[in-house]
Amino acid sequence: MLAACYEGDGQIAMRDVERRPPGFGEVQLKVAYVGICGTDLHVLDGDMDARVTLPAILGHEMSGTVTAVGDGVADWAPGDEVVVVPLDWCGTCPACLRGCAHICYRLNFIGIDSPGALQNYWNVPQRSLVRVPIDLGLKEAALAEPTAVAAHDVRRSELRAGQKALVIGGGPIGLLIASVATAAGGEILVSEPNSQRRQHMESVGLRTVDPADDLASVIDDWTLGAGVDISFEVSGSVAGVEAAVMSLAARGRLTLVAIHSRPAPVDLFRFFWRELTLVGARVYERADFEEALRLLGSGAIPTDALITDVVALSEAPAAFERLRAGQAMKVLVDCGVPA
Amino acid sequence: MLAACYEGDGQIAMRDVERRPPGFGEVQLKVAYVGICGTDLHVLDGDMDARVTLPAILGHEMSGTVTAVGDGVADWAPGDEVVVVPLDWCGTCPACLRGCAHICYRLNFIGIDSPGALQNYWNVPQRSLVRVPIDLGLKEAALAEPTAVAAHDVRRSELRAGQKALVIGGGPIGLLIASVATAAGGEILVSEPNSQRRQHMESVGLRTVDPADDLASVIDDWTLGAGVDISFEVSGSVAGVEAAVMSLAARGRLTLVAIHSRPAPVDLFRFFWRELTLVGARVYERADFEEALRLLGSGAIPTDALITDVVALSEAPAAFERLRAGQAMKVLVDCGVPA
Repeated sequence: MLAACYEGDGQIAMRDVERRPPGFGEVQLKVAYVGICGTDLHVLDGDMDARVTLPAILGHEMSGTVTAVGDGVADWAPGDEVVVVPLDWCGTCPACLRGCAHICYRLNFIGIDSPGALQNYWNVPQRSLVRVPIDLGLKEAALAEPTAVAAHDVRRSELRAGQKALVIGGGPIGLLIASVATAAGGEILVSEPNSQRRQHMESVGLRTVDPADDLASVIDDWTLGAGVDISFEVSGSVAGVEAAVMSLAARGRLTLVAIHSRPAPVDLFRFFWRELTLVGARVYERADFEEALRLLGSGAIPTDALITDVVALSEAPAAFERLRAGQAMKVLVDCGVPA
Repeated sequence: MLAACYEGDGQIAMRDVERRPPGFGEVQLKVAYVGICGTDLHVLDGDMDARVTLPAILGHEMSGTVTAVGDGVADWAPGDEVVVVPLDWCGTCPACLRGCAHICYRLNFIGIDSPGALQNYWNVPQRSLVRVPIDLGLKEAALAEPTAVAAHDVRRSELRAGQKALVIGGGPIGLLIASVATAAGGEILVSEPNSQRRQHMESVGLRTVDPADDLASVIDDWTLGAGVDISFEVSGSVAGVEAAVMSLAARGRLTLVAIHSRPAPVDLFRFFWRELTLVGARVYERADFEEALRLLGSGAIPTDALITDVVALSEAPAAFERLRAGQAMKVLVDCGVPA
């Protein structure tokens, strides 16, 4: 069968790989759709060469159908439509033992640390499966993973209905956070310097601002001098962190979503002065996947605006190139084989 | 009557000032004891010259007795023993309106922004008063303000009984936080580079560590590789922030107590990776004063170890010098006049 593999040195190639039966406690899935994620681009850039084993089959945002189950699997049967929580935790480290298995100190992130979904068939641990609701299509269900990221971020933000939130960064995750936060009753403003991305946000009804246009005044006018209740730092930039801090009201809460690979200067005086909170948010928990599937079914997520391209598995390398060039929002790879 | 005044240029001097009757809604206090605070030293260093009006009567940690009440004061009478919450808020700004009057956007901090307690008599707004329990002496009650700071910090930390906390910085506030957190059921380790301060901490039963002695290994051994649940950054140093971040377990909570006047580099990746929380803590609320008085009455606060000197008001300038030279922990100034 076919698989899209990272080969090192920025290269991705199609390979013929072996389809193997599911092992003990494993389920074999026929992969339907796989979304390409910003993290996959980081892998291609070599940022995760220490974690991947070459050739590495990428892909961790997906939907599919159970085709076979291994020994020890009682709850799943061929034909079940599922998505995968791509986390495999140890169960014994301090994080697991304090109820934070999703940030296990020895976490195996499936699709980076072990083979991913960009292939026709994929074997995964049974505990990673979440059932797709009967009325949700597999194309939309493939957005469950990034939507679960956003649901987790909004949960960590503790946003309540009626609160004002600033989302800094208007890529796919920024759009999803803004959508989930809107569904939760928040009033949302998205800060994004790229005018095309701003237009894209506005096309789905979101309010946007260009951070070059005196963001402080905009926030001041919008909140009558108070500042926002919540900010989401999704840009990964130092300027984004500064804006996320300065825009917050007394006791405001900054949710840190983006990966900042280097220490960033933070205005700790402002944290003291306004009693601000900064909270890190990483991946998701099972409840976030369930919430994501519910939101996708409810129409709260602008799936049509998000999915800008659907390509065949054999075209995955070209799709990576298009994403790298900033020419797409979310690309879904159709991994289906004829039944 | 006598008052200790900051005169600018690092100078403090005794002056003869007028004793005036309390105005509408004000209460006149005969000042008993006033503690000198690190913040007072910052004023002397000129760091708050933009806020003070010269000559500025300092002092905001105090105890005293009501001697007269102004019009509109019904709840207080001469003879009442009190402490003062030295905060005067506007009541109409966004912080006040969202229930955070203690960090009012137009806060008047009494003793910096307006005249303080280092004088024989002091007029304050009636709403700033908290009653001293009958069995608590006025000397111990003068520690209510810094103890309320610590109570506020521990409340913001959300520490629960049985949790492990690292306190970074072994000055008076570090000692108070460690004491309040111990009383709340926490297991506490104090990191302090100064050996005299470490000895002082150990003399009251606290466990200490020299951060030069591979703090990471000490934390690892203590927490069996998990990291601490809570850290308190009380040092004001960049190294303190680094240690406070690196020592935390998954979902750990850093309470930022110290004033960092410049942006500091923060390892935001670690906040993401371990889903850490950073929370700013500034001054206190009334409930923290009430908790502080309760703790002072219960014997949970090592008042004898804290109060290293008691001096007469006329000796206040010399006491400031001794504190600046690091030769005292907490100096109380006896402002009493013969009855």
